Amino acid sequence: MKNKLLMTPGPTTVPNRVLKKMSEAVIHHRSGEYCNLFAEMNEKIKYVFQTENPVLTFPAAGTGGLEAAIVNMFSKGDKVLAVSAGVFGERFIKIAKIYGLEVDVIKVPWGNAVKVEQIKDNLKDDHKAIIVTHNETSTAAVNPIKEIGAFMKDKKQLFIVDGVSSIGGIEAKMDDWNIDVLITASQKALMTPPGLTFIGVSDKAWEVVEKSTLPKNYFDFKNARAYLEKPMPQNPYTPAVTLIAAANEALRMIEEEGLYNVYARHEKFAQMFRDESVKMGLKLYANKNCLSNTVTGIVFNEDNKASYIKKRMEEEFNIIIAGGQEHLKGKMIRIGHMGCVNESMIDRTVKALQKCC
Amino acid sequence: MKNKLLMTPGPTTVPNRVLKKMSEAVIHHRSGEYCNLFAEMNEKIKYVFQTENPVLTFPAAGTGGLEAAIVNMFSKGDKVLAVSAGVFGERFIKIAKIYGLEVDVIKVPWGNAVKVEQIKDNLKDDHKAIIVTHNETSTAAVNPIKEIGAFMKDKKQLFIVDGVSSIGGIEAKMDDWNIDVLITASQKALMTPPGLTFIGVSDKAWEVVEKSTLPKNYFDFKNARAYLEKPMPQNPYTPAVTLIAAANEALRMIEEEGLYNVYARHEKFAQMFRDESVKMGLKLYANKNCLSNTVTGIVFNEDNKASYIKKRMEEEFNIIIAGGQEHLKGKMIRIGHMGCVNESMIDRTVKALQKCC
Repeated sequence: MKNKLLMTPGPTTVPNRVLKKMSEAVIHHRSGEYCNLFAEMNEKIKYVFQTENPVLTFPAAGTGGLEAAIVNMFSKGDKVLAVSAGVFGERFIKIAKIYGLEVDVIKVPWGNAVKVEQIKDNLKDDHKAIIVTHNETSTAAVNPIKEIGAFMKDKKQLFIVDGVSSIGGIEAKMDDWNIDVLITASQKALMTPPGLTFIGVSDKAWEVVEKSTLPKNYFDFKNARAYLEKPMPQNPYTPAVTLIAAANEALRMIEEEGLYNVYARHEKFAQMFRDESVKMGLKLYANKNCLSNTVTGIVFNEDNKASYIKKRMEEEFNIIIAGGQEHLKGKMIRIGHMGCVNESMIDRTVKALQKCC
Repeated sequence: MKNKLLMTPGPTTVPNRVLKKMSEAVIHHRSGEYCNLFAEMNEKIKYVFQTENPVLTFPAAGTGGLEAAIVNMFSKGDKVLAVSAGVFGERFIKIAKIYGLEVDVIKVPWGNAVKVEQIKDNLKDDHKAIIVTHNETSTAAVNPIKEIGAFMKDKKQLFIVDGVSSIGGIEAKMDDWNIDVLITASQKALMTPPGLTFIGVSDKAWEVVEKSTLPKNYFDFKNARAYLEKPMPQNPYTPAVTLIAAANEALRMIEEEGLYNVYARHEKFAQMFRDESVKMGLKLYANKNCLSNTVTGIVFNEDNKASYIKKRMEEEFNIIIAGGQEHLKGKMIRIGHMGCVNESMIDRTVKALQKCC
């Protein structure tokens, strides 16, 4: 049997160059060697975020990053407008509510994207922010962050974006698109094992941080920034040095390929995978006007068909794909094609799918 | 020049067997392969904690683990008694205060351990818990957790212990010593790169979790336990799978050697290092009745002597040691001898120190 092939929407396949970094001897987080590494990684992650602002790094899952955004930007009782178009939109809303925020929700039918008009129609004067998932991993649909960002220009509200499964795979220009807080994680398009979350914070958001009264320590943005901006950049608490070395190597690869070439590669292989799926009579879940270039969702009418395919893909072809979430459990398969995706990976997945479907 | 030797009190040298695991292909966190791995790791971490209760794992630094203990055990306004004997005792207190706890503090002079009598004298009926650092990494002094635990038997208050730089290196019997919440991290005596925190929670503490009203999501104990106790144990959010695989390998090594042999090895090499240090006329910082077996602090009267030694150790001998913290900056060196410490590491460090001091 061929090597295991990880085609899930995170964690994703980690390139050998990056894996090699993972097995290097651990370095001390207060040493010059670490500070130089962290400085390099910080510049490279800013490039991928397309921002001049600092991007903070915490050892945590992406969900920790979402929580970090809430506790640093808000106070109890603050009102926000949030888009729910799937599991991850709902997760951000749940976290906001846990911290006492009042959340007005724009419910978008699963598989669809929010329309800018819906934001326009629902944004109220007393909202402190809008919260949108860029790429909704559960439905494989992409929200129009660029257009929403254009509308948000000069608005007093913050524009907060969950970019966990988009950043590094789907275009997102943090500064040009007026994004104030942009969150991602290491294990998706950034081709690094899980365990790091990255959070970009705009000047406008830094002003808001000052007003937040929610308690925080581990995820305290001001503290993280103070350490980041030392002459030798560091972290307040022991960072996951090995993952930072790995992330730096992955970011080097993105830089070498060129960010827009990386986006183009994602688009090409997503398109190829979708075309092949449709050719074999499969039904894409997401609406055709918002298809994701990092993950594809395929839906089945027959109960448990999806679970059967997922199982066969693993057992017969050694290819790991994901199933559906919530009400789509057993009815959907999700194939990740992000990070170090290439033609042979798509080809092998398509050929196996042809035999399983 | 010889290979770099990491003799800091965390992160520590990671054995090759564990580093090798770090470079293995990433596995999916909802796959049977991961669940089996996580199940094995959970049994092994319980062995090291010497507990029958579940030990929770989060991708985070140890400081995140301290915060997790606070937000899951308490509500705003709760009163606790905490020991401050150095930087890490202070850190726990700071986090408790950030979350609105009222903290009565037993201040112990740096380099000393708290006395059980001080706990007895200061514990009040309205305290919900006592918080003690097991091994105070900043001073290299150990608090008498066993004796405090004996006193805490049948008390209504929780016994919360920061075991970040002790667990796996210095004896701590969570169940027998009546510890209710025990926190550690991967990068100290557990011989794994940084990025994971482990938290043991007693039955008594689980009852208290139900009453806590502090907001939490990422560090939610109940949620983590619900996933841990699935037929196939998992995590609520994407775990740092690679670090879990590494931790599992390190825990296998501890199991193979035998936990009490590991403690004995730590004691032997700590004693050897201290003896050699005293022989060369150096002054141990901690009181002789509470010397740590995972870290040694050496103090100098001359300003900047410590910084000079630390620099020479690195530049001439490629040995990384730590300096002093807070008012001991520039006056102290701290040498970690925990995890995969062996005779040749101690020997090389001693020989280099002889030339630098």
